[in-house]
Amino acid sequence: MRNIKLTIEYDGRRYLGWQRLGDSEKTIQGKIESTLKQMTGEVIEITGSGRTDAGTHARGQVANFKTTTDMTREQMLSFLNRYLPNDIVITKIEEMPERFHARYNVKGKKYSYNIWNSEVPTALHRHTSFHVKQPLDLDKMQAACERLIGEHDFIGFSSLKKSKKSTIRTLQEISIVQHGNLLECQFIGEGFLYNMVRIMMGTIIEIGLGKLPVEVIDEIFEKKIRQQAGETVPAHALFLDEVYY
Amino acid sequence: MRNIKLTIEYDGRRYLGWQRLGDSEKTIQGKIESTLKQMTGEVIEITGSGRTDAGTHARGQVANFKTTTDMTREQMLSFLNRYLPNDIVITKIEEMPERFHARYNVKGKKYSYNIWNSEVPTALHRHTSFHVKQPLDLDKMQAACERLIGEHDFIGFSSLKKSKKSTIRTLQEISIVQHGNLLECQFIGEGFLYNMVRIMMGTIIEIGLGKLPVEVIDEIFEKKIRQQAGETVPAHALFLDEVYY
Repeated sequence: MRNIKLTIEYDGRRYLGWQRLGDSEKTIQGKIESTLKQMTGEVIEITGSGRTDAGTHARGQVANFKTTTDMTREQMLSFLNRYLPNDIVITKIEEMPERFHARYNVKGKKYSYNIWNSEVPTALHRHTSFHVKQPLDLDKMQAACERLIGEHDFIGFSSLKKSKKSTIRTLQEISIVQHGNLLECQFIGEGFLYNMVRIMMGTIIEIGLGKLPVEVIDEIFEKKIRQQAGETVPAHALFLDEVYY
Repeated sequence: MRNIKLTIEYDGRRYLGWQRLGDSEKTIQGKIESTLKQMTGEVIEITGSGRTDAGTHARGQVANFKTTTDMTREQMLSFLNRYLPNDIVITKIEEMPERFHARYNVKGKKYSYNIWNSEVPTALHRHTSFHVKQPLDLDKMQAACERLIGEHDFIGFSSLKKSKKSTIRTLQEISIVQHGNLLECQFIGEGFLYNMVRIMMGTIIEIGLGKLPVEVIDEIFEKKIRQQAGETVPAHALFLDEVYY
């Protein structure tokens, strides 16, 4: 069996997310699987690097699947991009060793989150940014990012109720880049818990607005209570940029 | 009467353009005029800096109108952005002298055009870029831009059949900036003829693909024949960035 790795870009707006049981036609994974069936005649299950929420976009989601097809990579790329809906694009196809697994082998991920910070809304970025009307204090936000970086128990920054598995994760980098009214916040880490980027972002925003002190971050690490953190900001401004192996 | 200047951002995808006789509800101008009527009770006609084609976007279109309303600028901004569809945003409202006219007083305009240059398409930029699959030679495109800059008779680069008015225009600047697979081409000039940016862009692309020699530009200026220029590239990748007064 060949083991094929896909790199995938998608506009998540129309979908229930990467994966969701029961309604696969409205998920990215379901769309790709049905196009692969069309292509190969085989029933193929693909393994994603992880889920993305309903509405979340990707610049570089990764998945793999096993197949016996003898199509070339070029033929597969061209077939898939022709028959997938135009809000899902396969950007790269690679042939991998048999043991490659898109979820188990993940070494890290990069996410980004767009904030539109202006009193007036935006027409052109309305589907890909979260509108924050009040002025944000970038220095306070940077200070919040610094406290988040490193190895911590992030359970207070997740929607998990309890977890039997470890909720300790290491964040390598958080950076905020300003392009006019648009703030692009990037998060690079070895792993992320459920809703972790959106809750960290919500907390950084409330610190930037002066609603929460920057010290709240250490308190959330210490007391492990989700309620102290900021709100879970909307999914439509979140992008999975890259998966590292 | 007060003379009010609006700066407008819009996602042109759903519209027949800035203005079109007969079907004003599907134009940007029509949407703004009906919202102004709602706001003031007056029948208001707005004057745009010029038309934009069906599907074309704007980061900084400008228009003005006369009114007797005693609302403050802040009240108007907030009313308009609340009641306009969310693909049209008023970004600024200014009080102008009575003689200010959004079309007659234009000193120049900046447009930009996005090209997605990659064998594979794009999901995230599909509504705001034109997909060119074959590799473009940026040096040849830059050489084409240099020949277009300056004062010329641009009739060969327009969809005008004939013109009683002068078709001589001055282009100050054309620049091409590359962000990965995305090429952003900016055009700054004193004035542009009908379809001029889209036909110049189509010609620059065909030069970049090696389908036309760079010398074709001088020939089009000399012979004034539209047929020698490249195709009129699609409107959905074009943005009116700024209007200078």
